[in-house]
Amino acid sequence: MTVQDQWFDSAITRLADPQNQRVWSIIVSLFGDLAQGPNDRISGAALTRIIQPMHVKPEAIRVALHRLRKDGWVESARSGRSSEHHLTEFGRMQSAAVTPRIYDRAPEVPQDWHLLISESGGALDDLLLTENYISIGRNAALGSDRVPANCDDMVVFDVTARNVPGWLKSRLCPPDLIEACGTLSDAVKHVRGTRPAELDLTAAQIATLRTLIVHRWRRVVLRNPDLPPMFFPDDWPGPDCRASVFALLDALPKPELGELNAPS
Amino acid sequence: MTVQDQWFDSAITRLADPQNQRVWSIIVSLFGDLAQGPNDRISGAALTRIIQPMHVKPEAIRVALHRLRKDGWVESARSGRSSEHHLTEFGRMQSAAVTPRIYDRAPEVPQDWHLLISESGGALDDLLLTENYISIGRNAALGSDRVPANCDDMVVFDVTARNVPGWLKSRLCPPDLIEACGTLSDAVKHVRGTRPAELDLTAAQIATLRTLIVHRWRRVVLRNPDLPPMFFPDDWPGPDCRASVFALLDALPKPELGELNAPS
Repeated sequence: MTVQDQWFDSAITRLADPQNQRVWSIIVSLFGDLAQGPNDRISGAALTRIIQPMHVKPEAIRVALHRLRKDGWVESARSGRSSEHHLTEFGRMQSAAVTPRIYDRAPEVPQDWHLLISESGGALDDLLLTENYISIGRNAALGSDRVPANCDDMVVFDVTARNVPGWLKSRLCPPDLIEACGTLSDAVKHVRGTRPAELDLTAAQIATLRTLIVHRWRRVVLRNPDLPPMFFPDDWPGPDCRASVFALLDALPKPELGELNAPS
Repeated sequence: MTVQDQWFDSAITRLADPQNQRVWSIIVSLFGDLAQGPNDRISGAALTRIIQPMHVKPEAIRVALHRLRKDGWVESARSGRSSEHHLTEFGRMQSAAVTPRIYDRAPEVPQDWHLLISESGGALDDLLLTENYISIGRNAALGSDRVPANCDDMVVFDVTARNVPGWLKSRLCPPDLIEACGTLSDAVKHVRGTRPAELDLTAAQIATLRTLIVHRWRRVVLRNPDLPPMFFPDDWPGPDCRASVFALLDALPKPELGELNAPS
């Protein structure tokens, strides 16, 4: 086993998400990173080459693809003994909706914030699900920039935060999110720091590592609201984690689909 | 019965608060209007002359004074067959605390507002009782100018209101407050509009009418927060009521204590 193979195996172990290795979710991360375009196709053989090294059995990949087809995320086409998979229109929309947040290297914190207060808690639930709102207590939600059209029944205040107490900081960044962010940061730093000077990975190997990184980062960044610094606990490792994630992704440039799909 | 006597009797009927004619509370309004200074004294006979025309029996006045002494509001001194009453230090402080709001002809709406959000409802209760805060939902309170010192455990936002929905307007100005304000406004307008051209009231008669007006206005104005106009329902009669109240008070200039206490 070469030094590079040892490093690759240990990178897979370190980068694997300790919380979520559901295969359908990994495939969603993979398409989002490598094949989000309307004409992008990934062959069944390429999918196997990318995912199998994560210690996922081919049968589990088949089951996950079946589920993704059933849920309307993926379509598959067969020609002879080989198959090709691509995101549906719905899958691409879902993917595109989160892509800007996942790949934002230096998110700009909005300047203009407003607070919505509803008469009852339920009225805010829709907004919290569909728009980028941050729940502050039972009946209040913080949002940035424009106020949605359907807020006539809510108190709307333009706001500037002056004090953020501990209880709100730890609701926005609960201990498990701080933990997830810190361990991801450590993992990508270690993988990057230990890589051999001469790195000659296959397109599939690069895709394997990128998928693991993006998958795990996605689960941290989408829970991490883009709020001004005063909303975060002092020990919040978010910015450090973001920098480390992009440093490692930059060291593993995205392979072409043609390379990935070429028979090995 | 002279035209003036008829008008005086009918004014008493119109100005009497339909909701609250508790005698101890009327006496508090009376002291606040006429004898709030540390050396101000009102004789028992003067009190009777002022309050009895409101169809209050002398026995009810004695009971109310007893209660006010017991609660620490009033002290009484006896000399021979006559008595003198005055506010205690505590009574004067309570009275002085609300005087600015009761007698403000053109209240200035504060420019700077902030919103406090607590983790649980209870934390705000103290502030809502002791400071000039306006409850907005279960966990939020709106205040003006400086933030109190003990708010480290609350989210503090500087705020500017952009939308105030109907449910909040009718919480701030519930139908019974609008009704109380509107009927007071009608009453003082009618009393002022029907007064005889030649008015020659005794000091006690003026005090009777002033006490009734201030007592009823107090119960409206202290429930009416000094918020920007957008917080009020369209049919809010507050400013009209305020103008009418002061127009009538101006027509009934405050008598000297010496005149009031002089044996009739």
